[in-house]
Amino acid sequence: MTIGTIHGVGLGPGAQDLMSVRADRLVRGARHIAFFRKAGKPGQARRIVDGMLRADAIEYAMEYPVTTEIPISDPRYNDWLSTFYAECTRHLAALAHAGEDVVVLCEGDPFFYGSFMHLHSRLSDIAPVCVVPGITGMSGAWTASDTPITWGEDVLTVLTATLPEDELTRRIRDTDALVVMKIGRHLAKLRRALVAAGREESAWLVEYAAMPDQRVTRLADATDIAPYFAIVLIHGQGRRP
Amino acid sequence: MTIGTIHGVGLGPGAQDLMSVRADRLVRGARHIAFFRKAGKPGQARRIVDGMLRADAIEYAMEYPVTTEIPISDPRYNDWLSTFYAECTRHLAALAHAGEDVVVLCEGDPFFYGSFMHLHSRLSDIAPVCVVPGITGMSGAWTASDTPITWGEDVLTVLTATLPEDELTRRIRDTDALVVMKIGRHLAKLRRALVAAGREESAWLVEYAAMPDQRVTRLADATDIAPYFAIVLIHGQGRRP
Repeated sequence: MTIGTIHGVGLGPGAQDLMSVRADRLVRGARHIAFFRKAGKPGQARRIVDGMLRADAIEYAMEYPVTTEIPISDPRYNDWLSTFYAECTRHLAALAHAGEDVVVLCEGDPFFYGSFMHLHSRLSDIAPVCVVPGITGMSGAWTASDTPITWGEDVLTVLTATLPEDELTRRIRDTDALVVMKIGRHLAKLRRALVAAGREESAWLVEYAAMPDQRVTRLADATDIAPYFAIVLIHGQGRRP
Repeated sequence: MTIGTIHGVGLGPGAQDLMSVRADRLVRGARHIAFFRKAGKPGQARRIVDGMLRADAIEYAMEYPVTTEIPISDPRYNDWLSTFYAECTRHLAALAHAGEDVVVLCEGDPFFYGSFMHLHSRLSDIAPVCVVPGITGMSGAWTASDTPITWGEDVLTVLTATLPEDELTRRIRDTDALVVMKIGRHLAKLRRALVAAGREESAWLVEYAAMPDQRVTRLADATDIAPYFAIVLIHGQGRRP
């Protein structure tokens, strides 16, 4: 019997037709589909593929034991997640060893701040793993803003809004173009850092890029409440003939 | 008569099936196809779509008047390119005003260091322009390296190797994950900057990612000669449960 392959498949920023042709084929053909989601929610990755799955597809929902209920600094956070990833790994490896291929759905690009990376590092010594890159959420965001992100020799810095405020300020001051991910409950802090760096006026908030309720707002005009699928951008102003 | 639309279509890093479903449909359906290339070369964007075009597709090759023959600092550089972009803009706008849609082929993602941006800024007030994001060359590169680029709170810095050496060194020292684009003839300088920053040992050179001759080498084991389609990476080592 041949051992199956675990495919980590990037789905892109949200619109079904922004999936790659390779991802589209794998998703439509898969007998086993796995995806992460917050417990009790349908899951964004699963939502993207609505209507694409085989009628006989077997779904494996991997529900995070914790997301924002306790701070990342709490020692239980790492313990719970690491037990969870080990369990998902066992399940997927068992399917592969039974000869089954599995498609793991990944929002954006699997290797860019993705949960699949935690399975990839655990699986790659025990089963064949294959990654399909995807259009990142940040590409979706700057396309939604209808403005290029980097010109000529622009430096692009990608930050997570979870960083300390002074670290955010220092780095926002020292870059041409900026992308901030993982905004969530950190938007007020991020705004203070942008103001301190003198750059709030050039920042844009992009919510639900490439999804039906996509919205692009000057950060200065936005409230401090943003959904999980939000990205803050500052466009580079580099050389252009 | 309806005015046509100019579509700037991201083709992704090089493999035909890493194009999005939306890009695939637009490319296969287009009566007018435009693309940039170095004079006398077939052009990488055009190569990616080989075999996909309609039999009656009309092709418009936009040949750069200059690439690396004179330095960017030479005043003629900007003049020649700006005359060239103006001419391409006139041609595409004329097609749109004659009611024709045009697909402009863009390697990677159109708004990430792409030549299409120079047409977008000139066209957007005179004709409908629509951009389809793509998988970036850097996503293709880190996927080829089979290693995630950013974990947890990793800071990612994207640089062009054209920057001055001390600027490269300073920024390479001050980031978790690194992507360097536009390597070309700057690899020896980039290597000196990586060594000065104490990070040459963790750097990887990815050539022709997602193309048939894809190659991933530890930078320390590579020569100082790299093709245009080369990217240097340092993978982040951030938090992972």
